Amino acid sequence: MARQNLARRAALVDAAIEVLAQEGARGLTFRAVDAQAGVPTGTASNYFANRDDLLTQAGGRIYERLRPDAATMRLLQEGARDRERVLTLMRALVDRISAFRSGYLALLELRLEATRRPELRAVLTERIRADVDANVAGHLESGLPGDATSVLLLYLALNWLIVERLTLPDVFTEEEIHGLVAAAVERVIP
Amino acid sequence: MARQNLARRAALVDAAIEVLAQEGARGLTFRAVDAQAGVPTGTASNYFANRDDLLTQAGGRIYERLRPDAATMRLLQEGARDRERVLTLMRALVDRISAFRSGYLALLELRLEATRRPELRAVLTERIRADVDANVAGHLESGLPGDATSVLLLYLALNWLIVERLTLPDVFTEEEIHGLVAAAVERVIP
Repeated sequence: MARQNLARRAALVDAAIEVLAQEGARGLTFRAVDAQAGVPTGTASNYFANRDDLLTQAGGRIYERLRPDAATMRLLQEGARDRERVLTLMRALVDRISAFRSGYLALLELRLEATRRPELRAVLTERIRADVDANVAGHLESGLPGDATSVLLLYLALNWLIVERLTLPDVFTEEEIHGLVAAAVERVIP
Repeated sequence: MARQNLARRAALVDAAIEVLAQEGARGLTFRAVDAQAGVPTGTASNYFANRDDLLTQAGGRIYERLRPDAATMRLLQEGARDRERVLTLMRALVDRISAFRSGYLALLELRLEATRRPELRAVLTERIRADVDANVAGHLESGLPGDATSVLLLYLALNWLIVERLTLPDVFTEEEIHGLVAAAVERVIP
């Protein structure tokens, strides 16, 4: 029973991510989540204390689902320690995040909603700062070329590149996007 | 009378930008714009064909209000042609955009709304691509150091830096933000 509840809760949080991406933060209601998840109206309200709780859990779940897979972790930790390897990793990162389109769009919605909700802002700030710090530490431990500044500049440039790709996909062609990832790696790693 | 109408229209579009930033795209109704502008209910509906028209005009107006002032244009066109000058320009750019907080947040709302509205997406794509191209051309004509790739990488990195600053201002300290602008200029300009 407890396990069923956990699975149900995860399905509701995933449904909330889809609602956020499709309808925006203001469209996120318990009723919309129930409809998206295909469960009876009233279900979500049994699983979350309130809307803030649901928003916060959606943010956490997006990061969980964006965590690198085992193949990426091997690329990070094993093999050649050169700039080419960093480029391979950054291409994989951009593609992995772009592939979870609703998650990334939902995260942008949550950022905008955070400008109106101090509690959500505090939770997202902590989560994102921890993620940034983990990226920097992971890179420095990996022995790959590039310093902390390289990691931060890649974080900035690639995030906006993904925003362009997912919100206005015709601003840059796919070829331009690939070229910009390569150029970013080449220039920010001394 | 015609001039009054133009001023009234501009005031309504500016009110729409504030509503977008404060309430999100789904909160943008004619009624909310009337309330924000402090005009009688029903006014906005006389000035805009529909909600899409209002969204599109808000997008155009944000770019108009973000246009560099005369002092910035002089910095771009006159004086030393070195990397230090590029840094001065980029600092001014980041501060000018950050100062128009509601405009930048509204533009993010419009980008997310564009994922749901093909017409808005077409208008924004054209506008933003033209802006990117103008930035590249302006930089190359200025004789400042840096190639087209430098301009594009600065565009990417600084946009996300502004997203961080405006949506989750405690992820990076102001000191880190200044340091990242300097590092971006230093590294992307060969």
